[in-house]
Amino acid sequence: MPGQLALPERVDVINIGLPMFADAVAAQGSPVQQVDWRIPAGGDTSLVAALARLYGTAADEVDAANAEVLRRLDQGVPWLVGVARADEVVPGMDGNTLLHCGPAIEWPQVCDPLRRSMGAAVVAEGWAADTAQAHRLLESGTVGLAPANHHDTVVPMASAIGPSAPVWVVDCPDGGTRAFAPISQGPGEVPWFGRDTDAAIERLRFLRDVAGPALRQVVDQAGSLDILGLAAQGVAMGDDLHMRTQATTNLLIRNWLPHLAELPAPSRTELARFLSGNHLFFLTLAMGAARSLTAWAGQVPGSSIVTTMSRNGTTFGIRLPGSDAWYVTDAPPVADALYYSGYGPDDAAPDIGDSAVLELVGLGGPAAGGSPAVAAFLGGTMADGAAATEGFRQICASRSSRFTLPPLGFSGTPLGVDVRQVVELGVTPTVNTGILHARSGAGQVGAGVATAPLACFVDALLELARAR
Amino acid sequence: MPGQLALPERVDVINIGLPMFADAVAAQGSPVQQVDWRIPAGGDTSLVAALARLYGTAADEVDAANAEVLRRLDQGVPWLVGVARADEVVPGMDGNTLLHCGPAIEWPQVCDPLRRSMGAAVVAEGWAADTAQAHRLLESGTVGLAPANHHDTVVPMASAIGPSAPVWVVDCPDGGTRAFAPISQGPGEVPWFGRDTDAAIERLRFLRDVAGPALRQVVDQAGSLDILGLAAQGVAMGDDLHMRTQATTNLLIRNWLPHLAELPAPSRTELARFLSGNHLFFLTLAMGAARSLTAWAGQVPGSSIVTTMSRNGTTFGIRLPGSDAWYVTDAPPVADALYYSGYGPDDAAPDIGDSAVLELVGLGGPAAGGSPAVAAFLGGTMADGAAATEGFRQICASRSSRFTLPPLGFSGTPLGVDVRQVVELGVTPTVNTGILHARSGAGQVGAGVATAPLACFVDALLELARAR
Repeated sequence: MPGQLALPERVDVINIGLPMFADAVAAQGSPVQQVDWRIPAGGDTSLVAALARLYGTAADEVDAANAEVLRRLDQGVPWLVGVARADEVVPGMDGNTLLHCGPAIEWPQVCDPLRRSMGAAVVAEGWAADTAQAHRLLESGTVGLAPANHHDTVVPMASAIGPSAPVWVVDCPDGGTRAFAPISQGPGEVPWFGRDTDAAIERLRFLRDVAGPALRQVVDQAGSLDILGLAAQGVAMGDDLHMRTQATTNLLIRNWLPHLAELPAPSRTELARFLSGNHLFFLTLAMGAARSLTAWAGQVPGSSIVTTMSRNGTTFGIRLPGSDAWYVTDAPPVADALYYSGYGPDDAAPDIGDSAVLELVGLGGPAAGGSPAVAAFLGGTMADGAAATEGFRQICASRSSRFTLPPLGFSGTPLGVDVRQVVELGVTPTVNTGILHARSGAGQVGAGVATAPLACFVDALLELARAR
Repeated sequence: MPGQLALPERVDVINIGLPMFADAVAAQGSPVQQVDWRIPAGGDTSLVAALARLYGTAADEVDAANAEVLRRLDQGVPWLVGVARADEVVPGMDGNTLLHCGPAIEWPQVCDPLRRSMGAAVVAEGWAADTAQAHRLLESGTVGLAPANHHDTVVPMASAIGPSAPVWVVDCPDGGTRAFAPISQGPGEVPWFGRDTDAAIERLRFLRDVAGPALRQVVDQAGSLDILGLAAQGVAMGDDLHMRTQATTNLLIRNWLPHLAELPAPSRTELARFLSGNHLFFLTLAMGAARSLTAWAGQVPGSSIVTTMSRNGTTFGIRLPGSDAWYVTDAPPVADALYYSGYGPDDAAPDIGDSAVLELVGLGGPAAGGSPAVAAFLGGTMADGAAATEGFRQICASRSSRFTLPPLGFSGTPLGVDVRQVVELGVTPTVNTGILHARSGAGQVGAGVATAPLACFVDALLELARAR
């Protein structure tokens, strides 16, 4: 009959989206190709519109900015050039302020572990006789608070540093940027884990009076150090440089050994004991190096690549290049966690610290696929580490040419978290991190995976689209 | 027609052996399964008979002996317990003898790099004013020669040690065995690379007068060290412990750091400089540990597992447990080599040193699959390292429970070279090793892969079968 629709005998099907349709076709014995597709940004129309602009009319502009940001993150070479007291070198550091992790925060909102750390720092500075008095000074505003990131500084976990704290001085000559990070406090009873015991306060004094001056002499004698060159060797030896810095720490110690041997007694032996028991020693050096790169990359306007990602235990914030604006939301819990015996999720403070700056330069989670130790933590097989790296591949714009992963065919680690990809897919960065006790001052009680909250990436994307 | 052969319409083929027949079947569109099979031992009837006995009537006996040998190689725990002059601790070491690598050898047959190393040792001992005089003492027999292996000692590359040389003392308490290995001479102008310059001789004096006593103090203060426990950590960080010991050396340095800091000046600084520039420092410690295991395993009669494998640059020899008999043949060349600029195969001395003891305990080649650095040397991809490990799987009776390879699913390294498997398949151990100059005294001129000669494994197999 003319006009009748001639149905074909046989159809080959391409199914886009929900796989149940493809399954139904396959069950009837017909060939079917499934395309994994979801509605971008969960179908939110304002986000789809923003993405359409940033991937459409504004794409050339954003991509050009991103290319420059990625070049800086990948090609900049940060050098350790010295050790100094914070008030000697950190710009804008005044005599009665503590620099803390994460976005800006007022005392009433500061979480318990960071409060304790701040109290310990105030006592170590000699501003208070004990932590109770210290808390009163903090509450009254006599001792002020400022985000470390506002002073070119990054501090790990629940760190707060005063003017006398020794810091690494890291220069990135390509960009003319300089960044700072405190010397690692090591394991045990330490303020960066939210402890405020006498021993914890004493550790800060040891860093200021013994380790800092000794390391200053070592760095002065050893000369400038290519921090990420050493880290790249460590990555090939299974470090992710966030959860594990064992190999890189040990490479550094062997490099510095002749200069450590020339230190005067008794600081030589005291520093040697401290280094010998501190396999995370390199962490803050890597953070300082990363911060000097993001400081340079952060000067490029119009980019969609994240150049600040940071948490204070209360809020989580990111920044995009070319602006001082923070996009802030509640700090996430640390999930997929392993707790020390006797502790559980009820004891856990939210995700905290500036160390996620590492994830912005191809270290930490992006490097998990090369780390047997991190893979063992994440699930026990190298595939678990590779999955973490793969998660970052989805949301990163490029690959590091500096950090390569032998078990993944020496491929470069994912580099450059792009808010467009994050919002399009609804996939945010994950950070492997320690867990601190929320209330008791017990310090570290476990470790787990913190998944960055989507809201701040959404806000950043919308603002970027508005400005185009 | 009755009696006519009814050919089937269609055949499914299993082809055993030469794959060309399978290819022909496949080309005609018929299904074919290829079985990779070769005539054992190349079809040599006496070897087939020996294998038939050792895999047949004598199999239970051999397998039982092997199980005990493998248990000892896998489960024994070697401890570093001290540092001493060789003549203080090495049994049977008299005052005018050098211990050298490899099987027994007379001076006229000694290769050039080992002659130079021996000359340097004689001068360092103070027995001769220069190497010319030293060579006359060696030629006349005034200074005697003995294989280090005959004195529970193993020495790397072209090493020869006199009575004053400092050695690691390694105990395996499970077996009541004790083994020795010299302190690493480090890189540069050094006798173990076949150099005999003033600087090379001076290195021996430095080891005796500075490094040895200092390390003795360190070990005495630090206490016993679980050598292979540390090596197992190093394997997970990319060491094979033969070509690369970087990670394990660095772990050791960090462990010992507090004790290194307490050494007196100036030896503290001199030792620190030496350690800082010597990433192969752990090599001889691993060798000594391996030797203490093979010494224990070597006491089990009737086993087909190799417990000595060693070369002196002229001959290559192996031993089986339960006997002092050596099976010796010509030392092989080092093939698949990379040469330093200006050098080539004509400059290369044959394979040399006792370090192949590592391949008998699951290190070196068996661990190549976990080592990005060794893989890069072998061909550039992790698959090249995995292939080296796979080669050992074919000829090894077991797997290490101590050394596991993250990139290969944390599988244990191949353990226990079985002469039955070697002869059956015609596959011998490969050893990644340095190449020394054959004549000029230039020292190391490259690195490559030495493939053990089959002849000595054949001789060992025949003797083992005769004795059953």
